[in-house]
Order: sequence, then structure tokens, then C-alpha cells
Amino acid sequence: MLYVIGLGLGDERDITLRGLEAVRRCEKVYIEAYTSLLSFGLSSDGLSTLEKLYGRPITLADREMVEEKADQILSDARGSEVAFLVVGDPFGATTHTDLVVRAKKLGIEVKVIHNASVMNAIGICGLQLYRYGETVSIPFFTSTWRPDSFYEKIQRNRNLGLHTLCLLDIRVKEPTLESLCRGKKQYEPPRYMTINTAIEQLLEIEQTKGESAYSGDTECVGFARLGSEDQMIVAGTMKQLQLVDFGAPLHCLVITGHTHPVEEEMLDFYRLETQNLKQEDNGV
Amino acid sequence: MLYVIGLGLGDERDITLRGLEAVRRCEKVYIEAYTSLLSFGLSSDGLSTLEKLYGRPITLADREMVEEKADQILSDARGSEVAFLVVGDPFGATTHTDLVVRAKKLGIEVKVIHNASVMNAIGICGLQLYRYGETVSIPFFTSTWRPDSFYEKIQRNRNLGLHTLCLLDIRVKEPTLESLCRGKKQYEPPRYMTINTAIEQLLEIEQTKGESAYSGDTECVGFARLGSEDQMIVAGTMKQLQLVDFGAPLHCLVITGHTHPVEEEMLDFYRLETQNLKQEDNGV
Repeated sequence: MLYVIGLGLGDERDITLRGLEAVRRCEKVYIEAYTSLLSFGLSSDGLSTLEKLYGRPITLADREMVEEKADQILSDARGSEVAFLVVGDPFGATTHTDLVVRAKKLGIEVKVIHNASVMNAIGICGLQLYRYGETVSIPFFTSTWRPDSFYEKIQRNRNLGLHTLCLLDIRVKEPTLESLCRGKKQYEPPRYMTINTAIEQLLEIEQTKGESAYSGDTECVGFARLGSEDQMIVAGTMKQLQLVDFGAPLHCLVITGHTHPVEEEMLDFYRLETQNLKQEDNGV
Repeated sequence: MLYVIGLGLGDERDITLRGLEAVRRCEKVYIEAYTSLLSFGLSSDGLSTLEKLYGRPITLADREMVEEKADQILSDARGSEVAFLVVGDPFGATTHTDLVVRAKKLGIEVKVIHNASVMNAIGICGLQLYRYGETVSIPFFTSTWRPDSFYEKIQRNRNLGLHTLCLLDIRVKEPTLESLCRGKKQYEPPRYMTINTAIEQLLEIEQTKGESAYSGDTECVGFARLGSEDQMIVAGTMKQLQLVDFGAPLHCLVITGHTHPVEEEMLDFYRLETQNLKQEDNGV
């Protein structure tokens, strides 16, 4: 039996009771490391918060293990109960379809325990989830690689009055150029795209294309550490948000389409001006 | 302080630890009744499962109370800690923006505790969440009211190769015609649209419009009781799904756009043929 368990977005307390019961029942517990260590504020040898709560030792399944060494996870799951823990929802922004398909093909029973993901938690800003168009990903530009397929999608969404969720690039365990040449395993330090970089890249592409899909004056919402105690949500124009320091990762960005009055009313609470006023109030 | 707490999709064990801690801290606990009683298999005087787990008496806040009597909830929240429980995620398919906006305007602090919603849990079928277009709602047709705005949206999504989530109508606490005339409060029995009715209505509108947005042969996925122990997920053409008995509510439907091989591979596990074979296997 393979349990694929969503941990939610904040910290170890965002697991569901159903999820917790399942983990505690399992003989082997893996956690996907892509984003989890980061979101949960842990270092690679600091899984102890989770281990204490779950009462189980946890094996870190980094990208290599999930992609290349899934055999081990699956062979464990053949004879016993195994949990694979995933930050957010198992089928949210990062998906684990591959592992599940392989398990099912081997005849291993798979149970999914859902949780919140970025894809639904962004609803907190007041923009209605059913008024979003296709989600886009913004990859880190390099000097030679500046893919812009997100542009057309944002343009299409905005033409239809729909909002766009932009998922921002995460680079973890990227092999260094040197390691690729010499066959040694060495990794670049992890990189998480900030809202500031995302907007910079978005505006660069608008400059190149010149089709006014959006502009520096387009209303957006920036989210940092969504679902955690110290989450930060700010509404403002691209130009405004570009100047905001959103702090630690993970970040994501929503570009608004046509907003309804009830959406506006809620967005108002997150506007830069409102937040500044509030801070002044607190200072008095 | 107003806590708006998502309960997830299955039963009382789908609350998060963070959510449970918050409920237990609150002096007053309300639960929205729109869909909750149903999803959690409770009758209106059967909140005891939840009350036992949460260690708090729970007040049922039906549609009238949330819309008309929000004042009470808000005045409670002014002086003490109040929890408002919501099935799924607070800002998922059914939103509670209104209550939150009113609270914030009164200067009441609002904390949202996220959970899974239909909007992200549908990811379980293998269709990638970032490949969905705009979500549509299918309302119950009456003899005189047959709104079809969903048609154009599905057509647009499918032309772009995107999947469409169809949320199916729920009619709870609809006043009877008699009660409207006489000013007495009397309600129609609750109605929850089945996948079968949704497909019937979808095909009727295709027949009328004749623009081939979809057809009886279009690949779909039907979900019943998503996230519960007895959830049912079946992939097949509209014609095939129309003949499936999905059982008790809630139902929802996904109409596929262009599917990728990895999506197909996962969908295969939910296909009608696969499921039939499985049942035969079990019978041997």
C-alpha cells in the first residue's frame, strides 16, 4: 500500500488527522524534498520536527531518488504500508503522477490524502477561483534561453477577463556545469524565483512583443509563503510590486483579468496603500 | 478573532491539526450548512461526531444565517475567538468572501486555515491542474429557464486544448412557491445535480447550438464524493458516463481538452473498461 499524503502549505501542523493516522501506521515514510525542506523551514538533517510529530523516521526522497530510485519506494510499498509525503496537495502544482502510475501498474494499492495547494489557497486574496484561466510557469531566463510561452497564455486569459496564476521557477539540485563535464555530483545552490524577478522578466517580454498583454500598470497580487504564519499577500500594480521585498521563498504571482466589485472589495485589504496605512496606525 | 477553517472533503478526520487546535480554542463554533451536512453524512441534529472531536458545541449556520444574520457571528467574533467551519477550502468552489470582507471592515482579525477543495482534489484523475481553462457551473434547467453560458466557455477551453471543471448545481433551502406567496417559511427538498443530469443538459445544449464544442463521444471524468472513503472516479465518453450510477452526491464532471500521454496513462486506471475488468477479477 502506497499512501500519497499532502502536507499542506504551512508547517508540520497542516497535515490532516486522516493523513497523520496514515503516516503513523506506515513502516516506511518518505518525504519529497523538492520544496518541502524549504517551506517547512528545515535543513536536510533537521527532519526531526516532522519525525517527532509522526513518530516515524523519515527518508528524504530528493529529485534523484523519486525519479531514478522509485524502485525502492515501490518495492517497499509492495509488502508493507509506505507513506510518500508531499508539500501541498499530491496533485497540486508539483505532481507525482509518475510514481502513482508506476505503483498502480505494479498492482500496488494507492491511497491519496488531499490537502491545500497553492492552486486553491490563492483564493484567499478574493479573486474567485472559477475566474482563472490557464496557469502559467515563469522559468528563470539565462543569457541564451528566454522562453516566453507564458506571454500568449496571459494575453489570452486577460482578453477573456480571466486571472492568471504564475508559478515561479524553483531550481533545486541543478548539477553544476563542472559536474556535468567531469561526471562528479556537484550541485548549484538552490534558487527560488522572487516576485521581483518574475515581474522583471514579464515586463521584458512585453517590451519585446509590444502587444500590450499587460503593462507595469496591470493590477497583480503577490504571495509569499502562502499558508504559513508569516505569509505575505500584497495587491498592487506590477511596478508597485516590483519594489516590494517579499522576503523568503516561495513566491507566486497572480495577474488579474477583469475584477468584479466583490473581488475588488477583498483586494482592497491587501493593497499597498492599505498596508502602509495600517503600519502607520500600529506605529501610533 | 474570526477563524475561517476549511474542513476538507471527506469527513471529520480531514481537518488539519492547525485547524483542530484553532476550533478547540474558540468559544463559539459555526458550521456552514450548504453542503457540509451532506458531505459528512450527517443529519441536521447529528453534528455530534464533529462536536465530539472538536470538544465544542457547533451552531449550524444555514444560508439564511450566513447571508442575513452574519451580524451575530461578527459580534461574537469581536470580543472572543469564533470559528466558522467550511467544507473544502474557505475560498474553494463555494466562497465566503462576503463574511470575511464584513469582518475585516469591522476591524476583526481574520485567520484562514486552508484545506483541500474540489478545485485541487480533481488533480487525482491525472489531468494536470495547470491545463484547465475557466471553470463552469451547470445550473438545473427548468421548463422556462435553460441558461447555457457554460457552452461558450467549454468550447473556448476545448479549442485551446484545455480541460474544463463543471461544478454541478446544488439546491438547498429553496423556498417553495407556496411559501413565497404566503410568506411562510417552507422549503423544497434539497436537490443535488447528478453527472447524468449534467450530461443530459450538456448534450441538449450541443444539440441546440450545433457548434460541436463537444459530443457524446467526448472524453470526460466523473467524480462522486471526491475525497471520501467511498469516492468514485470514472473516465469515459459522455455517452458512457451517462449510463453510470455514481450514487450519492456530491458529483462533479471534468470535460477533457487535449490530453498528454502521461495524463492518458493515469486516466486509463479510471476507465470504465478497466473498472469492469477489475470487478470481474475480484469476482474470480
